[in-house]
Amino acid sequence: MGKQTWHYSNVNVISYSSVVGEMESKGPLASDFDERYEDQYMGQDSWEKAERFLLERSIDIAIKKANLAKTDIDVFLAGDLLNQNISAGFAARTLSQPYLGIYGACSTSMEGLSLASAIVEGGFGKYALAATCSHNATAERQYRYPTEYGGQKPVTAQCTVTGAGSIIVGATPTDIAVTYSTIGKIQDLGVKNPFDMGSAMAPAAAHTIATHLRDTGRSPDDYDLIMTGDLASVGHPIAKELLKQEGIALSNQFLDSGLLIYDLKNQEAFAGGSGCGCCATVTYGHVLKKMAAGKLNKVLIVATGALLSPVSYMQGESIPCIAHAVAIERKVNP
Amino acid sequence: MGKQTWHYSNVNVISYSSVVGEMESKGPLASDFDERYEDQYMGQDSWEKAERFLLERSIDIAIKKANLAKTDIDVFLAGDLLNQNISAGFAARTLSQPYLGIYGACSTSMEGLSLASAIVEGGFGKYALAATCSHNATAERQYRYPTEYGGQKPVTAQCTVTGAGSIIVGATPTDIAVTYSTIGKIQDLGVKNPFDMGSAMAPAAAHTIATHLRDTGRSPDDYDLIMTGDLASVGHPIAKELLKQEGIALSNQFLDSGLLIYDLKNQEAFAGGSGCGCCATVTYGHVLKKMAAGKLNKVLIVATGALLSPVSYMQGESIPCIAHAVAIERKVNP
Repeated sequence: MGKQTWHYSNVNVISYSSVVGEMESKGPLASDFDERYEDQYMGQDSWEKAERFLLERSIDIAIKKANLAKTDIDVFLAGDLLNQNISAGFAARTLSQPYLGIYGACSTSMEGLSLASAIVEGGFGKYALAATCSHNATAERQYRYPTEYGGQKPVTAQCTVTGAGSIIVGATPTDIAVTYSTIGKIQDLGVKNPFDMGSAMAPAAAHTIATHLRDTGRSPDDYDLIMTGDLASVGHPIAKELLKQEGIALSNQFLDSGLLIYDLKNQEAFAGGSGCGCCATVTYGHVLKKMAAGKLNKVLIVATGALLSPVSYMQGESIPCIAHAVAIERKVNP
Repeated sequence: MGKQTWHYSNVNVISYSSVVGEMESKGPLASDFDERYEDQYMGQDSWEKAERFLLERSIDIAIKKANLAKTDIDVFLAGDLLNQNISAGFAARTLSQPYLGIYGACSTSMEGLSLASAIVEGGFGKYALAATCSHNATAERQYRYPTEYGGQKPVTAQCTVTGAGSIIVGATPTDIAVTYSTIGKIQDLGVKNPFDMGSAMAPAAAHTIATHLRDTGRSPDDYDLIMTGDLASVGHPIAKELLKQEGIALSNQFLDSGLLIYDLKNQEAFAGGSGCGCCATVTYGHVLKKMAAGKLNKVLIVATGALLSPVSYMQGESIPCIAHAVAIERKVNP
C-alpha cells in the first residue's frame, strides 16, 4: 500500500442525505435528492443563510435516517466555499457537537469522508458525520461579479450547484463499507483561468486515480463506477486522456458528477456543475441510493478541488488543484 | 473517557519549528523562534507571498530538524486565515505531499495537531506534519481596513501575529509525546464585536478545558502549563473566572500565548497577540523548547478560534467560537 492510500477494515455507511435548489430539482437526478427547494432563498433573508439552511437540513435528515440523536454524533467534519467556512461553522453551532472545520474547495466532500472514516477506524468515535454545501448565488457573489451585474461567461465555466450533502459513517455494520481513501497531492500545470477549472483540475484527478489503482493493485474494471467531481465537459475528457497516456483505460464506468447533475442540452449550466455541493449531493443522493438498491457494488468517488482564491488569481498565480478518492463498496453475500 | 477526548498511546513529537516577523522578533520570546524577519515582505513582492514564505520556511525547518526528507512526510495538514486557505494550499504545492486543508481560525494549530496525531495513532502514516501561519498585513487587509487607511482600534482588539509554526508527529519514540486531544464544540454567547474576540472566545476555552479535565480525570495541577491561544488581556481573565465558577481553580500555570508573545507595556499590540500563527509559534517555539530542556513536563495547549467572517459580521451574526485542547507530555524516566 503506498503512503497516499488509507485502508479501512471497519467503516460503514450508516446514512446519507442530499438537499438541492431549483436548478438541480429540474435536472436528471431530481428524484434522488431528499429535499428540493425551488426558492433560491429557502425562506431565509440572505443567500448565505439559505446555504446554511441547506447544510443544516442535510445534517438533520442524515441523523434522522440513521435513527440517531444529534448527541450520538461524536465528531462533525464540514467545510464549504464561503470565506472562513461560515456555512460549516454556523451549522456546527446548531449541531453543537465536536467540530473540525476542513477546506478543500470542491474536494471537501471526500476530504471529510476520508477524515471521518479515519476517525472511526482509529477508534476515536463511534459515529462521524461529514458534510458540505454550496450555493450558486453565494459563490457568484463571492468569487465572480455581483449577481445583479449579469456577467457573461465562457462555455468552459462551470455552474456552482446549490445543494448540501451529508454522510454518517460508523463502526456499526451495514451493507455498505468505506474501504479506501487516497489522499491527493497538489497538481498544478500552470492553468490560470478561473473560468476553466475543469482543465486545471483534470491532472489532479488523473494523478489520484492512477495512484489509487497502483496502491490498491486494482484495475479500473474492479469498479462499477469511477466518478470525478467536478471536471465537467472540458476537464473530464482531459482526465480520461491523461490516464490513457499512463496506460489506464477507462470505459463507460468513468463519469463526472458535474455532468450528471444537469441536463446540459436543456439547462444553462455551461460545462456542467461544480461547487462542494455537486459531488456531495450526487454521491450522497444518486450513487449511494443506487448502491443500496444493488445497482452498483463498488465505486470510487474522486472529488477534485481548485485551491485558488480571487486574491491569488488577481496576483497572477496559477491554480493549485487536488483530488481525494474514496472507495465505497457494497458487501455482497458470499 | 468522554466522547470529546481522544487518547493517543504512541504519538511522538519528532520536531517543531517557528518563524516570525518584526514585531515578534522584538518581543519577550524572540530568542525562542528559529528564524526572525525584520522585513514585513520577507523579500517577496506581496504580503500574501510573504505569509506563504513564512509557512514554507517553518515546514522546511521542521523537516530538516527531524533529519527527514520531504518525501518522508505521509500527510500534511494546514490552514490559515486567508480566504480559501491560500497560504496552506500553495505551501502544499511546494511540499508536494498528500495534503488535507483545515480551517479553525486561530484554533487551527491544535486542530491540525489533533488530526495529525489521530492519523499517526490510527496507523495511516508514519510522519504527519501540521502547520499554520498568519501575517499581520494580510489579516488587516482582508478582515479590517486597507492598511494604508490607518484605522483606529479599541484596546480590546488583538494584534495578528506575523509568524508560522510547524510540528511533525510520528510513531518513532522520542522524549515528548502527544497524549490527548479534546475536540471543541461551538460556544456562542452572543458577542458580535470583532474587535473583542477574546471575550467571544473565552467561553469556548473554558468549556474545552473543563471537558478535558472531566474526560481525563485530571486536575489543573496535573499540568505545569495550561496555555490558551489567544484570549489576550480581555478574554483570558474571563476564561479563568468562568472556570472558577465551575469549581476549577487555575493558578499561575494558566497563561495565554497572546499575552506571552508581546511586551504589552512597550509594544503596540492592544490586548495581545492573535492569529493562527500566535499559538503555533509560541507552542512550537517557546513551549516545546522549554519541554525539551526539562523545564516543563506536562502541558495543555488550548487553541481558540473565532469562526466569523466579514460577511457574517456585516449580516449581524454573533461569533461562533471553538477551542481544541492538546496534551503534550515529556516522558520522565521512572
